[in-house]
Amino acid sequence: MPDKVLSGEGLRGQSAGSTAICTVGKTGTGLTYRGYDISDLAESADFEEIAYLLLKGKLPTQAQLDAYKTVLISYRGLPLALKLVLEQIPADAHPMDVMRTGCSMLGNLEQEHEFSEEYDKADRLLALFPAIICYWYRYSHHGVRIETYCDQDSLGGYFLKMLTDKSPSELHKRAMHCSLILYAEHEFNASTFAARVCASTLSDLHSCIATAIGTLRGPLHGGANEAAMAMIEQWQTADEAEAGILTMLANKEKIMGFGHAVYSESDPRNVLIKRWSKLLSEEADDAVLYAISERVETVMKREKGLFCNADFFHASAYHFLNIPTKLFTPIFVMSRLTGWAAHVFEQRAHNRIIRPSADYIGPEHQDWLPIDKRH
Amino acid sequence: MPDKVLSGEGLRGQSAGSTAICTVGKTGTGLTYRGYDISDLAESADFEEIAYLLLKGKLPTQAQLDAYKTVLISYRGLPLALKLVLEQIPADAHPMDVMRTGCSMLGNLEQEHEFSEEYDKADRLLALFPAIICYWYRYSHHGVRIETYCDQDSLGGYFLKMLTDKSPSELHKRAMHCSLILYAEHEFNASTFAARVCASTLSDLHSCIATAIGTLRGPLHGGANEAAMAMIEQWQTADEAEAGILTMLANKEKIMGFGHAVYSESDPRNVLIKRWSKLLSEEADDAVLYAISERVETVMKREKGLFCNADFFHASAYHFLNIPTKLFTPIFVMSRLTGWAAHVFEQRAHNRIIRPSADYIGPEHQDWLPIDKRH
Repeated sequence: MPDKVLSGEGLRGQSAGSTAICTVGKTGTGLTYRGYDISDLAESADFEEIAYLLLKGKLPTQAQLDAYKTVLISYRGLPLALKLVLEQIPADAHPMDVMRTGCSMLGNLEQEHEFSEEYDKADRLLALFPAIICYWYRYSHHGVRIETYCDQDSLGGYFLKMLTDKSPSELHKRAMHCSLILYAEHEFNASTFAARVCASTLSDLHSCIATAIGTLRGPLHGGANEAAMAMIEQWQTADEAEAGILTMLANKEKIMGFGHAVYSESDPRNVLIKRWSKLLSEEADDAVLYAISERVETVMKREKGLFCNADFFHASAYHFLNIPTKLFTPIFVMSRLTGWAAHVFEQRAHNRIIRPSADYIGPEHQDWLPIDKRH
Repeated sequence: MPDKVLSGEGLRGQSAGSTAICTVGKTGTGLTYRGYDISDLAESADFEEIAYLLLKGKLPTQAQLDAYKTVLISYRGLPLALKLVLEQIPADAHPMDVMRTGCSMLGNLEQEHEFSEEYDKADRLLALFPAIICYWYRYSHHGVRIETYCDQDSLGGYFLKMLTDKSPSELHKRAMHCSLILYAEHEFNASTFAARVCASTLSDLHSCIATAIGTLRGPLHGGANEAAMAMIEQWQTADEAEAGILTMLANKEKIMGFGHAVYSESDPRNVLIKRWSKLLSEEADDAVLYAISERVETVMKREKGLFCNADFFHASAYHFLNIPTKLFTPIFVMSRLTGWAAHVFEQRAHNRIIRPSADYIGPEHQDWLPIDKRH
């Protein structure tokens, strides 16, 4: 590898195109989907309304929402070939690799032949992602082949039902609506941008979404809520957490779930998910994890001036919903699929292939050497 | 979708980072890998030497090349679980979806846990891609479960053996060396750039390569040689081809295999693969396809001033090698894997997450409307 330091990487602050889907850090509390403030959406809407808003551009009427939910429910059957593939994936696989493979395999079985099918293919993925991850998880971890047809009328409720075999409470379903809405879209983040690069060659939707899943898989992008969970669950009390954080800061360790590349003062999603973490904590009679989380927030603000991002209170919230930590990032996929697909549709509608230039820092001309002259 | 025209898309001419791997349209005949001119490489080297050069940064000695080939041969066994997955993919699937799924599935079975494994994981993919596509192709099309261990000492020879069950001639193996070298690397093209975006979140190699495959799948990127084949095989004589091209031009139809986004006067790869197309044509006693191809080249130059790119004479060359047209783009994958992986390694070594900005052209603030107020 070359020793020179590469410069100008990351395209930070450089526009790579236009979008009508989302603003980050611009107006309102800092995050809007198609002009609507995230607070309004997360407090009032069902996730399916927001999926509809992102994919089709406007909020649905009650009749449209009902029809949309009916379609999604009807799309929950896993093809047999996909079940057999999921059964070949071992229990110690990375759950994001399972999601990427499930998406990729579906592309073989139900190919998007024309872009006129794009909404339908996105709806199918939206309906199937909870089935894909839960089928693999329960088969590989518990030896159970679950039935993925189910009449839960929300994606969050469906996921919790597949995962636990129990019908979730209204409270749990509302918490999932909020969480899925908060993760649904975030402009030209790395996974969305990667999906747009893929879409710019006019590739199919499954390729674009597999690309986005693979990109979200990296620890600099997805996975912060899993890392936050691993951190907070090691402590038994708020005081212990405070001492732990101070030690980590002294050791210059990275503390996941704080700060943000675009937001400078606060992440508008934090207050929304924090409220749910508190409600769920009370319902679970938890005296520990929420208190620890709040203390960590306080200490990080006091010591480093850093605020919680969307991921931090998601850790405790998901924990109170009895979701295994390793499935946190796949939930991100279930939700963000809506934003990814909306960006793919937008890219296709006004496409130019994304093909930047590079600064060359390699060797100048080298003369060919026959193999017996090399050393 | 918004009606406004988006501008500034495509990042054309904008630097998205630095690279020491490749120049396109800068020096020599216009294409260099690590400073070596493509003509020298394609005429003199084995593909495995170039894979080594791209992945490890320098040309191997004879001992290093021998050792490298031995490793690649030893890596040709398909895991049983991957065979079972490939058997679930129907014959009418898109072969690039098969490649993407094979790569993704391997990531479940042989996860890259640390970046110190990156060379090894790339070698495994390099060894297995011919096995993946041929195992699927022969099982789904002929009902045969092939044995993928084989002592052919070149990737091209191995592919031809897996595909036809016959040991290829020296001539055919040399043709494959040239073809694979020509397709191995091309700077920040869309698939490579997508792989780098994926790598920039510090995701695993299988995610990066699945991303690149999915991006290459789009008709604006891969597939031009397949389209050229479909065009030239419809004609019986050179005169018929000339009349056909003139009609297509009059109808303003797109003619695949001509011109290039970066090269302005010629594609340095054309003369190299054209020579092989001619040699293979003579060996095959072909009186038609090469003559047609040459005539199309002449007419396109005369009528539109357009030159053949790397893809055009690849169509006839692959045809003379008895390769089914639908497998042309998967060969591109087998070769380009080396460039993709080299770029992933380079991105990791000097990483910054690739996260550009976007120009917002969507609606201004919209007030939330309860669902019963919408229409």
